[in-house]
Amino acid sequence: MHMLRFPDSLVAGYRNFMTGRYVDERERYRVLAETGQKPQTLVIACCDSRAAPETIFDAGPGELFVVRNVANMVPPYEPDGHYHATSAALEFAVQALKVRDIIVMGHGRCGGIRAALDPNAEPLSPGDFIGKWMGLLKPAAEQIQTNSVMTAGERQTALERISIRNSIANLKSFPCVKILEERGKLNIHGAWFDIGNGELWIMNRETRDFERLEF
Amino acid sequence: MHMLRFPDSLVAGYRNFMTGRYVDERERYRVLAETGQKPQTLVIACCDSRAAPETIFDAGPGELFVVRNVANMVPPYEPDGHYHATSAALEFAVQALKVRDIIVMGHGRCGGIRAALDPNAEPLSPGDFIGKWMGLLKPAAEQIQTNSVMTAGERQTALERISIRNSIANLKSFPCVKILEERGKLNIHGAWFDIGNGELWIMNRETRDFERLEF
Amino acid sequence: MHMLRFPDSLVAGYRNFMTGRYVDERERYRVLAETGQKPQTLVIACCDSRAAPETIFDAGPGELFVVRNVANMVPPYEPDGHYHATSAALEFAVQALKVRDIIVMGHGRCGGIRAALDPNAEPLSPGDFIGKWMGLLKPAAEQIQTNSVMTAGERQTALERISIRNSIANLKSFPCVKILEERGKLNIHGAWFDIGNGELWIMNRETRDFERLEF
Amino acid sequence: MHMLRFPDSLVAGYRNFMTGRYVDERERYRVLAETGQKPQTLVIACCDSRAAPETIFDAGPGELFVVRNVANMVPPYEPDGHYHATSAALEFAVQALKVRDIIVMGHGRCGGIRAALDPNAEPLSPGDFIGKWMGLLKPAAEQIQTNSVMTAGERQTALERISIRNSIANLKSFPCVKILEERGKLNIHGAWFDIGNGELWIMNRETRDFERLEF
Repeated sequence: MHMLRFPDSLVAGYRNFMTGRYVDERERYRVLAETGQKPQTLVIACCDSRAAPETIFDAGPGELFVVRNVANMVPPYEPDGHYHATSAALEFAVQALKVRDIIVMGHGRCGGIRAALDPNAEPLSPGDFIGKWMGLLKPAAEQIQTNSVMTAGERQTALERISIRNSIANLKSFPCVKILEERGKLNIHGAWFDIGNGELWIMNRETRDFERLEF
Repeated sequence: MHMLRFPDSLVAGYRNFMTGRYVDERERYRVLAETGQKPQTLVIACCDSRAAPETIFDAGPGELFVVRNVANMVPPYEPDGHYHATSAALEFAVQALKVRDIIVMGHGRCGGIRAALDPNAEPLSPGDFIGKWMGLLKPAAEQIQTNSVMTAGERQTALERISIRNSIANLKSFPCVKILEERGKLNIHGAWFDIGNGELWIMNRETRDFERLEF
Repeated sequence: MHMLRFPDSLVAGYRNFMTGRYVDERERYRVLAETGQKPQTLVIACCDSRAAPETIFDAGPGELFVVRNVANMVPPYEPDGHYHATSAALEFAVQALKVRDIIVMGHGRCGGIRAALDPNAEPLSPGDFIGKWMGLLKPAAEQIQTNSVMTAGERQTALERISIRNSIANLKSFPCVKILEERGKLNIHGAWFDIGNGELWIMNRETRDFERLEF
Repeated sequence: MHMLRFPDSLVAGYRNFMTGRYVDERERYRVLAETGQKPQTLVIACCDSRAAPETIFDAGPGELFVVRNVANMVPPYEPDGHYHATSAALEFAVQALKVRDIIVMGHGRCGGIRAALDPNAEPLSPGDFIGKWMGLLKPAAEQIQTNSVMTAGERQTALERISIRNSIANLKSFPCVKILEERGKLNIHGAWFDIGNGELWIMNRETRDFERLEF
């Protein structure tokens, strides 16, 4: 392995996989390779190492089509000819794979949200990609930032949830999403995972408040 | 739960998580929430439901910072003020989290690669986001597309691996990545996962060929 | 009973009490009458019929000295010679009964808080007592009221918790409270009861965030 | 729980509540949260730990809107722009919740009444809030104080009952109360609870004497 210089921890993890669950799932992988994937669900989640959808939903191969970016955001629909990673994945999931459910999943202690709330944040590099990316949340972040009566923790959680609602609204700005949702062929859900205690909060469609899922 | 209308399969999966591995990992999540995440590794992987990094590397919370887009691509460095999901996540991982390793992980049977190889591919929607996104691979795709002596499967695998090399080259167009790699503080790796049989192939740094990892 | 015209439901409830738990607690009441009350805890709670401290804490006679007003508020220390119901009860609890703990307990769906957040609220009577009383929260209410990115439910919960922190700050403006707390003879706690699902959230002393109490 | 440092006895009591009566009342709380409270009765009671209305009337969630202050007093109607806790709660109960019954409930061994009868009482703190508060009873207290032929116990009980009548008279100084009572839409009751033996005495509307309620 040192010839290939692949991180030891990943080699060890891959070995655990191949000698563990893969033994039980081998046939399933084979079939999925032959027939293609038919996941029912698109999950738009954060890159955060503590909030992996497959872990949280105990998902096996073939179940979840997963997009992960910083702060689980969906930009608004802009068919301007530039390349848009999240829009491309969304289009593929909805039009090609024909998923039935889209979950926008945020989480607590999100670094992207924290950056958006920091009035003194410096660009991480001259490109300031994170600054621009989190700019998708700017109006909401400014309202929350100036609130002096909520604690830092409350502002953080508030903006994390606002971001999920914002992403859901942007999802609906995609014509294919809007049309399919209206026809009852696509359901959009919001979820927020508390990495501190494992709680999962689901967005109530009517009130748009987040409520703890009891299991 | 019907009031919150969350997919039953995900509720069941979450229950399995909370009554299963979370019981053992509870303290780890708690500490990670308090101290923050310090993942050593950034993985750039595909959205494909059959190729989840956490599964393949048996990773637990806190280990992998994961970006997932169609065909695990990294666009070239373009600090043009627009928002770039993958570039933002890369900047955050390298500059804020200071990861030590970046893995670009592709896989077999990739739908994005298949689309890039299909000369008759129609846009999935008027926005044609996938068409534009896979355009990142256009020069390479055109060469492979016109190859008449390789089988469809060989062309598919070839372009999947070319794409990984392409993403790695684009990674190095980011100044912060280039500088840190030259100083030995950042290692870049390519990997390709065969979803049909579980094999993991690692890119040899010298030859840039992919070689099967034995475990 | 019709001679005394006391509500039937209360007569029935009193009968349940006397033939039920009073039978077991009879001796305790007798002793408490003779020796006097020595409650360790002062609870400042809301009048709301769904948030009774004795119920939520399963308290028996002699345990809790309870002040209840609209929105569980503690006004700031103002020794101006007027009569102040909450200040008088606080003074009695701290100086005469020498309680060890003070709990300021708020709750979800609080009508007083809802009134404070309603920009169109009309006075309930010419005296506008509720309007003036909720004015104790005015600066905080105005900040929350103008937030357009949080849901109505989020604003409600935010102000309920802000109000608890506000009451705790006002408690500390009473010299007797401040002195005893500094000497470690008095502990002040914040709690918030979710009447919808029975959850009790406790204020973390360091962060001042509310965290769910697991039992 | 030690992180949140909430009194152990209250944590234990809350656990008893959640594993006991809450199991039976869960649905009731849920409905009350959604539809709002509609208590029929306002109770003005004392803070005393031995005289909790919910206990004495075996009341469940949603039944009683409860104000508790020292010596269960209602100050006279004074719309002077200051904040008045008891007046605000009264206004809310009568005008917003539209209660049908108001119970002023006093009790034996009341510490506030004892203080009012003590000619040598020193202020409990420089603010002398209790002194001022009990001043609401001053004329009556002075008459009873100087009575040399009643025992201390008789003077105590006498002033407790005088105080209830005093509070009822002050209730009627509130225009909204007076109007609704005259129209038969609001009934005012006096009650006195003997903490020593559990007896409940109700005020006879005609004579204004207190008579023991048999159950």
